[in-house]
Amino acid sequence: MHNPQLDIDGKLKHLLTIEGLPKRILNQILDTAETFVGVAERDIKKVPLLRGKTVCNIFFENSTRTRTTFEIAAKRLSADVINLNVGTSSQSKGETILDTVDNLIAMHADMFVVRHAQSGAAHFIAQHVPDNISVINAGDGRHAHPTQGLLDVFTVRRYKPDMHNLRVALVGDVLHSRVARSEIHALTTLGVPEVRVIAPKTLLPADVEKLGVQVFHDMKNGLKDVDVVMMLRLQNERMTGALLPSAQEYFRTFGLTQEMLNHAKNDAIVMHPGPMNRGVEIDSSVADGSQSVILPQVTYGIAVRMAVMAILGGRQSAGERNTALQAASSMAPGGIS
Amino acid sequence: MHNPQLDIDGKLKHLLTIEGLPKRILNQILDTAETFVGVAERDIKKVPLLRGKTVCNIFFENSTRTRTTFEIAAKRLSADVINLNVGTSSQSKGETILDTVDNLIAMHADMFVVRHAQSGAAHFIAQHVPDNISVINAGDGRHAHPTQGLLDVFTVRRYKPDMHNLRVALVGDVLHSRVARSEIHALTTLGVPEVRVIAPKTLLPADVEKLGVQVFHDMKNGLKDVDVVMMLRLQNERMTGALLPSAQEYFRTFGLTQEMLNHAKNDAIVMHPGPMNRGVEIDSSVADGSQSVILPQVTYGIAVRMAVMAILGGRQSAGERNTALQAASSMAPGGIS
Amino acid sequence: MHNPQLDIDGKLKHLLTIEGLPKRILNQILDTAETFVGVAERDIKKVPLLRGKTVCNIFFENSTRTRTTFEIAAKRLSADVINLNVGTSSQSKGETILDTVDNLIAMHADMFVVRHAQSGAAHFIAQHVPDNISVINAGDGRHAHPTQGLLDVFTVRRYKPDMHNLRVALVGDVLHSRVARSEIHALTTLGVPEVRVIAPKTLLPADVEKLGVQVFHDMKNGLKDVDVVMMLRLQNERMTGALLPSAQEYFRTFGLTQEMLNHAKNDAIVMHPGPMNRGVEIDSSVADGSQSVILPQVTYGIAVRMAVMAILGGRQSAGERNTALQAASSMAPGGIS
Repeated sequence: MHNPQLDIDGKLKHLLTIEGLPKRILNQILDTAETFVGVAERDIKKVPLLRGKTVCNIFFENSTRTRTTFEIAAKRLSADVINLNVGTSSQSKGETILDTVDNLIAMHADMFVVRHAQSGAAHFIAQHVPDNISVINAGDGRHAHPTQGLLDVFTVRRYKPDMHNLRVALVGDVLHSRVARSEIHALTTLGVPEVRVIAPKTLLPADVEKLGVQVFHDMKNGLKDVDVVMMLRLQNERMTGALLPSAQEYFRTFGLTQEMLNHAKNDAIVMHPGPMNRGVEIDSSVADGSQSVILPQVTYGIAVRMAVMAILGGRQSAGERNTALQAASSMAPGGIS
Repeated sequence: MHNPQLDIDGKLKHLLTIEGLPKRILNQILDTAETFVGVAERDIKKVPLLRGKTVCNIFFENSTRTRTTFEIAAKRLSADVINLNVGTSSQSKGETILDTVDNLIAMHADMFVVRHAQSGAAHFIAQHVPDNISVINAGDGRHAHPTQGLLDVFTVRRYKPDMHNLRVALVGDVLHSRVARSEIHALTTLGVPEVRVIAPKTLLPADVEKLGVQVFHDMKNGLKDVDVVMMLRLQNERMTGALLPSAQEYFRTFGLTQEMLNHAKNDAIVMHPGPMNRGVEIDSSVADGSQSVILPQVTYGIAVRMAVMAILGGRQSAGERNTALQAASSMAPGGIS
Repeated sequence: MHNPQLDIDGKLKHLLTIEGLPKRILNQILDTAETFVGVAERDIKKVPLLRGKTVCNIFFENSTRTRTTFEIAAKRLSADVINLNVGTSSQSKGETILDTVDNLIAMHADMFVVRHAQSGAAHFIAQHVPDNISVINAGDGRHAHPTQGLLDVFTVRRYKPDMHNLRVALVGDVLHSRVARSEIHALTTLGVPEVRVIAPKTLLPADVEKLGVQVFHDMKNGLKDVDVVMMLRLQNERMTGALLPSAQEYFRTFGLTQEMLNHAKNDAIVMHPGPMNRGVEIDSSVADGSQSVILPQVTYGIAVRMAVMAILGGRQSAGERNTALQAASSMAPGGIS
C-alpha cells in the first residue's frame, strides 16, 4: 500500500502518524529541528521560510496548549496563522468536515493543522486535499499525535545521542496514550535496542508484546538500569473507574518518585508529555528535579513543529502549484486570457 | 439623499450594501479584484498595501466562516488583524455599541468589519465614525451581505464575461436571503438583461416583481436556457415550519438535481453561497459536478474582499488624516508643542 | 525589601503595580509613551522594536477590551502575539498556573501579559519566571491595573503639564477600584500637591486619609476649583446591594452632571477609565462633552502600553540571555557541541 504521508518522490507530504515513516524521513525531521533550536534562542526568533503562506489550525476539539505550540511555530516561520474552532461554528450549520476543508482550500490555505476527537480524521482530510496542500495531525482520538512522538525522540537523541546503546522505559497508561505506540516505533526505527513498558495489565493493550517491547508490571525491575524514563499521562478523563483502584493507589505502585528513579541509571533522564498530574503519575520533586527534561521537551516541541512545517512548506514551493482554483472546478473561467 | 457609502468626491468610503452603489464603483471593485486573483496563486501571497493598518473584525454574532475570509484577506494585504467577539464581552458590562466603537477608534483602528444580527447595525456604525475610518458590512440580519453579493457577480463575470447576453436564475429562499436582493440589483446594474427568481410563493417577498425580475414557481420553466443558476441557502434556522412542508418535499420540487440542471444551457454554471444543505436545496452530485463553480466563488471571495479593503485603505492613505484623537475630543492637549 | 519590579541595575523588569515605582521609572515610561503617540498617527503605525519576540496574553479571566489594547500595542511593536484564554483550557485538565507558565517559558515566550481575578497572580508569576522574561499585570482582582493608572497620569500630564500646580479629584467607588490607589500614588510621586477623593463613606477604604488625600462626601465642595476630575467606574458586579441605595440615587448625589462640573475650574478635564455606566456615575452630555478626555485616554493607553513593552523588551535584548532551556533543566544535553 502506498504511504499516504509521502509523495511519489518519497518526500514528506503530510504528517499523520509516525508509524510508517521511514528512518530517512525521521532523521530529516530531527536534523532540521536541530537548526531551529538555535533560532528560538536568538533575539529575533523569526525566519522567513513560510512568509506569505497561510497555516490553518482547524481544531474540532479545543486544546489551547497544542494550538499554541503550532501557532508559535508557524509565526516564527513567518506564516499567516488562522485559528478555527470548528466545533462551535460551521458544523452547527450542518456543513460537513469536507465542505469546511474545501472552503479553506479554495481560500488558498497551504497547510492544515488538524485536531479532532476521532481517530483517522487527519488521514481522512489528507486523502481529500489537492497535491499542494499539507496536513499535520495535531492529535486524533487516542490514535496518533505525531509531533509529540517526534519531539520525544528528538529529546532522547539530544540528551543521549548514542541511540544504539540505550534502554528506554515507557511507564503508565500505554492503553490510552496517543503517543506510546508511535514512540516505540520511532525509537526502534532509530536503533534503540531495548524498549520497555511498565504498567498494570489493565493499562496495556492486548497485543503489546508484538510491538517488540519488554513488558514489566513492577517499577523496580522495569526501571533497572534504564537511560530514559518516559512517563505517560494518566488519561483520567478517558478512563472508566473500573481500570484503576484510586489515584493514591496508582501513585504508590506506578508513580515516579525519586526512590523509584534511583533504580534507573544515575544519569537517566525523566520525560513527560504534559500536562502532568503531579502526585498521580509523577512526584513533584522528580518533575522539577535535576534529571527532569520535561520543559526542554516543550522547547524542542517548537523546533520539531517548525521543522515539520518547513519541510512540508519547502516541498510546496518547489513543486508546481496545482492551484486550488483548478482543483476546485473543471469549468474554465471564460474571462481569463 | 446623500449615499452614505461614498465620500464627497464620489469615492467608496464604506461598503454597507450593494444597493445604491453606482456602476462605476461596482466595476472598480471587480476590476481591482482581478488583480488580487493572481496574488493568491503566488508562492508568497502577500502584498504590503495595508501594512501598519489595523483591521478590527467586530462580530456581534459568531461566524467563523465569514470572519476567516476577512481575516485571510486582511492578512494578505499585510494589515494587523484584531478579532473581537463582542457578544461575549463589553456588551455584558453594559457598554453600548457606540462606546465599544469609540474605544476602537481611539485606538486608531482603520477599518471595521462588522457582523451583527440586526439590520442596519453597520450603517449605524458608519454614520458614527470619523471620516478616516471605513466600515465593511459582513452581514446584518437578513438585510445585506455585500461582499457575498460582489463575489457572486465577480464569479458570473469571470465565467460569463459578456454580461449583456445573460440569463440568470436565482433559486430558493429569496425571502430570507441576505444577498438575493443585492445580487439582482448588481446584475441589473452591470447590464444583465434577464434575471429570474424561482421559488415557492411562501419564500418570495410580496413586492418581488418590482425588482425587475421574472418570477417562476416551477424549476423546469424557470431554468430553461439560463446561463447561470444561483442557488440560495435554505435558511432553516430562520424559518417557521409553516412556510415549508418538509426538506424532502422541498428538494423534490426546488432542489437542484442534474436532471433539473439539464433544462439550463449546456455550459450553465451553478453557484451557491454556502454553507450548503446537501440534499435539501442542492444534490451532492451537482454541487461537486463539472458545472459547479461553488468553490471558485470562495476563492474569488478572498480576492473581492482584498479589493474592497485595498480601495478603502487607499482612500484613507491619500486623504488627510483626521486623527481619532482630534475627533475624540475638542480639548487641546497642553503638553504638545 | 527588594522591589520585584526592578532588576539589580534598577531597570524596569516587570510592571506589576504602580506602587513602589520610583519617580525616575514613572517618567521614563511617560516620556517613552510620548514618542509612541506620534506612531499611532502615522499611516504605517508600526515600529520593529519587538520584531521576533513572542508576547503571550494569558487571560485567566475574560476581558476583550483589555486584551485588545495589549494586542494592538504589541502588534504595532511588530511582536508575535499569542492569545491564551486559560480559564477554558489547561486549568480544566488540572494543570497548575505555574505549569502553564513554565510551558510558555519553555516555548521561549518573551513577555507575559497576565489578567487574573485574584490579587497577586501577576506577582506570583513574576517571582517564578527566569530573568529574561517580563510580566505585565493587566488587572488582578481589585488590587492593581498599572497600565490603566499610567495612562491616566499620562493623560493628566499631557493636558495639564504643570503638575506641581494641580488639584485632582477622584470621584466614586474608591473602595472597589483597581486603580484609585495607584493613581493617588503616581500623582503624588509626580508632584501633584493636592489630590481629593469624593465618595460616600461606604465606598471608601477605612484608611483612605493615610494615602495623603483630602476626603469629601459632597460633590460641590469636592469639585470646587479642581483641574482634573477622574471619575471611577461603579463596579456594579462587585458590590452587594447594601452599600448603595440605588443607581438613580447614586447619580443624584455623586453622578457627574454639567451642573456639578461647573464647580470645577473652567478648563478642567473629565476622565473615566471605561466602560462607562452612563446615567449612573456620569451623565452622557458630560461624557461626550467638550471637557471630556475619555477617548484620548484610550488613545494614550495604546502609547503607554507600547512604552512599557518597548522598555521591557529593550532590557531583554541588551542583557545576556539566560535561555529558557538552561533555566528549565540542569541536565546538559549531550548532543550539543
